[in-house]
Amino acid sequence: MTASTATSHQDRLHEAVARRRPGHSLEGPFYTDREFYDLDIAAVFGRLWLFVATEAEVPEPGDWTTVEIGPYPVVVLRDDAGGLRAFHNVCRHRGARLLGPGRGSVANLVCGYHKWTYGTDGALRHAPAQPPDFDPSCYGLKPVHVRGVGGLVFVCLADAPPADFDEVAARVEPYLLPHALREAKVAARVDLVEEGNWKLVMENNRECYHCDGHPELLRTFFPTYGYTEANLPPHLRAAHDRYLRADAEARATYERLGLPYALIEELDDRVTGFRIQRDALDLAGESFTPDGTAACRRPLGGLPTPRLGHLALHLQPNSWCHVVGDHAITFAVLPLAPGRTLLRTTWLVDPDAVEGEDYDPDTLLEVWTATNGQDARLVARAQHGVSSPAYVPGPYAPTEYQVEAFCAWYTARLREELGR
Amino acid sequence: MTASTATSHQDRLHEAVARRRPGHSLEGPFYTDREFYDLDIAAVFGRLWLFVATEAEVPEPGDWTTVEIGPYPVVVLRDDAGGLRAFHNVCRHRGARLLGPGRGSVANLVCGYHKWTYGTDGALRHAPAQPPDFDPSCYGLKPVHVRGVGGLVFVCLADAPPADFDEVAARVEPYLLPHALREAKVAARVDLVEEGNWKLVMENNRECYHCDGHPELLRTFFPTYGYTEANLPPHLRAAHDRYLRADAEARATYERLGLPYALIEELDDRVTGFRIQRDALDLAGESFTPDGTAACRRPLGGLPTPRLGHLALHLQPNSWCHVVGDHAITFAVLPLAPGRTLLRTTWLVDPDAVEGEDYDPDTLLEVWTATNGQDARLVARAQHGVSSPAYVPGPYAPTEYQVEAFCAWYTARLREELGR
Amino acid sequence: MTASTATSHQDRLHEAVARRRPGHSLEGPFYTDREFYDLDIAAVFGRLWLFVATEAEVPEPGDWTTVEIGPYPVVVLRDDAGGLRAFHNVCRHRGARLLGPGRGSVANLVCGYHKWTYGTDGALRHAPAQPPDFDPSCYGLKPVHVRGVGGLVFVCLADAPPADFDEVAARVEPYLLPHALREAKVAARVDLVEEGNWKLVMENNRECYHCDGHPELLRTFFPTYGYTEANLPPHLRAAHDRYLRADAEARATYERLGLPYALIEELDDRVTGFRIQRDALDLAGESFTPDGTAACRRPLGGLPTPRLGHLALHLQPNSWCHVVGDHAITFAVLPLAPGRTLLRTTWLVDPDAVEGEDYDPDTLLEVWTATNGQDARLVARAQHGVSSPAYVPGPYAPTEYQVEAFCAWYTARLREELGR
Repeated sequence: MTASTATSHQDRLHEAVARRRPGHSLEGPFYTDREFYDLDIAAVFGRLWLFVATEAEVPEPGDWTTVEIGPYPVVVLRDDAGGLRAFHNVCRHRGARLLGPGRGSVANLVCGYHKWTYGTDGALRHAPAQPPDFDPSCYGLKPVHVRGVGGLVFVCLADAPPADFDEVAARVEPYLLPHALREAKVAARVDLVEEGNWKLVMENNRECYHCDGHPELLRTFFPTYGYTEANLPPHLRAAHDRYLRADAEARATYERLGLPYALIEELDDRVTGFRIQRDALDLAGESFTPDGTAACRRPLGGLPTPRLGHLALHLQPNSWCHVVGDHAITFAVLPLAPGRTLLRTTWLVDPDAVEGEDYDPDTLLEVWTATNGQDARLVARAQHGVSSPAYVPGPYAPTEYQVEAFCAWYTARLREELGR
Repeated sequence: MTASTATSHQDRLHEAVARRRPGHSLEGPFYTDREFYDLDIAAVFGRLWLFVATEAEVPEPGDWTTVEIGPYPVVVLRDDAGGLRAFHNVCRHRGARLLGPGRGSVANLVCGYHKWTYGTDGALRHAPAQPPDFDPSCYGLKPVHVRGVGGLVFVCLADAPPADFDEVAARVEPYLLPHALREAKVAARVDLVEEGNWKLVMENNRECYHCDGHPELLRTFFPTYGYTEANLPPHLRAAHDRYLRADAEARATYERLGLPYALIEELDDRVTGFRIQRDALDLAGESFTPDGTAACRRPLGGLPTPRLGHLALHLQPNSWCHVVGDHAITFAVLPLAPGRTLLRTTWLVDPDAVEGEDYDPDTLLEVWTATNGQDARLVARAQHGVSSPAYVPGPYAPTEYQVEAFCAWYTARLREELGR
Repeated sequence: MTASTATSHQDRLHEAVARRRPGHSLEGPFYTDREFYDLDIAAVFGRLWLFVATEAEVPEPGDWTTVEIGPYPVVVLRDDAGGLRAFHNVCRHRGARLLGPGRGSVANLVCGYHKWTYGTDGALRHAPAQPPDFDPSCYGLKPVHVRGVGGLVFVCLADAPPADFDEVAARVEPYLLPHALREAKVAARVDLVEEGNWKLVMENNRECYHCDGHPELLRTFFPTYGYTEANLPPHLRAAHDRYLRADAEARATYERLGLPYALIEELDDRVTGFRIQRDALDLAGESFTPDGTAACRRPLGGLPTPRLGHLALHLQPNSWCHVVGDHAITFAVLPLAPGRTLLRTTWLVDPDAVEGEDYDPDTLLEVWTATNGQDARLVARAQHGVSSPAYVPGPYAPTEYQVEAFCAWYTARLREELGR
């Protein structure tokens, strides 16, 4: 690319970002064009801390799980010393992908092509038939920054990860620790490919303006989420009154148990945008089930009551999670193409919970499987419509303030990247 | 795109158009390249009146049918006052596609995402939970020009539709009106995806040089179509003699019934290129069936004889239709990608005709289903071959004069667009 | 494309070629990017002699086989005079592909669209309904250079084929002629689509460093291929000793029968890079079967012993073949897209061999069907990994010297093309 073409290309991206009208959805090309997708990979997925797995997926030395971050295949594993590691899942010989999709356990990472063999620390332990001057220390796996926060695993592809993550981790971890997610076990992990841009998947998650489309979820999730007294729609009045009563009770419980519950909402004023809140659930108030009672007999973290509502964590750029008394559900959003996105959902339960005895997986997975499917259909409709040249950005309602925060945060990341 | 890159891009398109050799097929990139496809969407599908549906598909207030015009999702519907309407099928909130594929009926157009609710006139009637300063009148559906001509529905995406359409409509409508297509009912609508550029689908329709490949159609469709005495191949001599006798009889019938039948052929000398003709059919001469007898007992428009041959209408850029005594068949050509095109075929019968009693749908659909399938295979072969860098445009035979007219008309549209 | 954009594009390709580090694999974009793919089509597949078929596929006048060389559909056929011919498989009228996929036999080549009819010499014999001034001699099929070498069929799409092919043919043919491949019959032809760039398919073939992944092949194929005493891995010592004994015996046989067997290896120092060698096989030493005995009772070319080891021919850019006493196997590599490649494998046996009597096709095809499938999986893993922006070229081991030769030869071809 010549300097002049590159400049004009940058100009075009700059102008599109500059045209963004606060309070309104993004222009169509942000969701449909390859050049914006490539910019997203560079500015967002190549720079920031990303939620990609749970520690429960890699409990023992040698356990691994793989993830595709846009064009980057990455492996997360537990090393022989018990530490978390992440590497580019690419052999240093001729570039073959090392470990396949899914999860597994290995003593060493052996490339299936020519048997180059790496330790769980990434060091090249053996490469067959090399000349005497071959130096294995030059060919260790390329590391990826990784860290666990309260049992959630984050990676960062950049050389220099964002500086504010330490602070965010320190503020979030106390909310998570009582639930002992690090010691949990994986009840299920489901990958869903959605036919829409990754930002549409995120935006969909950031509001409950569309929650009428989630009848299963709305059994226990208060549909008043995101509304205030000022803009509460009349049909939600009864639910809101019920919410206020449940909320008062929940707060008393949190105080009694010493569980942090204050809302922190810093979605668009820092690089590692986040929001955390502990909140009541409807009906029995224990879990995301049709009647709100726990789906698993064994509580997470041994907490003394199942009636804990839910802990909700929203993280920019690519995740959210819910922790209830008996299980946790994590969601990782991973871009596949401008109009295709992987949503990986993982259900965690107490490590001693036995499938079929302590929990019925159908009941455990029911609500969020239905909800994810409904959201995937909504995202596909959004992708279809914003692909029309006739689409123009429309205004967000007040209850969509977190979508606005996501878009403001996102365009700030693009501005940073384009200004580099 | 910088000015200089844009100019060079335009230059390249200009040069390709300028190189077009009259009497010869188009160069390969017109059929295969994304930049020519995008130009076609701008110059043709974004500018001109397009046939997209029949009024019979939307007989009652609230009835709708959707269509994809390249990247534009569009809905055609009947409003509460009984008028035709067309809108961009895109919610003004966050751009979700409003109505799905197919046909249906609604009281209001309700977006499935956040329940924004539009009247059949496109006005935004309700958007939940908005602040006091929200002005619904700013967020009506974006309208698309629409009109019915003798029961056929045309839309135009441009702000200023072509000026000559009124005249064309006025000249075509008298041919159509006796058949009462506006009051007809839809017997079937079939979508076929062809693996070729939309222009190959159109060119295929514009000649009968290939009609040996249509044994079912040739039972009643005279294979002499497009030939003159001067260039009639010897093997078509007998068919031509039979045609001349049938033609004489048909003309007498048209005169007796007061049906307009004169050929009008203005395919390449106006923006809304068209051709209309009433012509005899072979065998029983009534319909496109194996023996030429009517497939439906009830005549369209209550005409007193079924032996009417067929009325054939060819329209640039994207349609043709045939009307016989007992039914009508319309064809809409809609580009999906440089090498993929949707052909939507709709069969109309008398509104009182009862399936299984008055007509057998298998018989009704047989000939054109077979013919469409044969054409789709020919179009795919053409797409395959013109994708070769070794392909060079070849000469049209005299009987392919309508293909030449299509190409001449098409390149004139590109010249207009590039000159803007 | 403006001159400046074209230049910058060329610059970018030039720089990537210039960055190539000898002894290391190619950078990722060579395997993944459309612009490198297009360059490969121009520099390699559009310029050089390509192996595409065997004469056994077109034994009689009118016999044809089709092949897709990147975007070029080509037909190879036997003309009425018994000569080999190749043409662009594109009708000179409107560009329809003439002959479909597979093989067949025709008296004339008749386009299925409008019946334009060509002789087996490519001359246009008949085009229906043309005006008097139509000159058929202007519309013969566009020829493609073609020649047979010892029963293998090569085509070249360039106007001026590489000058050194005559010499290569003259040196290779004596090795092939004793096996009478020209008179052989096709026992099977199998097309396999691999999910990787064509160069990864070639590179995979050029070393046995990965042969642990081929248990069926390694029954008879010595895994010491490509190793020297200096770099032989300890676990191959026993195989190597066995090889030396088999090799000594094989050489004596070749001498006795007058079969040329000297290794010629000119893979990277000429345009038509090649390598030919006659070599021993393990176990019974006759064929690629589980116990090394012949899969077909009738020897190819009537040679007096089945224990002939194998003749291996490696050709740049796109083929290899093995000839054993009872059959031959040819492999043609044909690019479909940057990340997709067709591997066409053809098994030849004695013309009088009867399936089910003289050979069991399952046995005949077993080893290389398994081997091809294993290689396809390795190629897909390599394509996945080299698509990562984190991939960097790694070092070849000494036993991969032919992969290095392929890459050196390949980059020389790109330099030639970019310097034109």
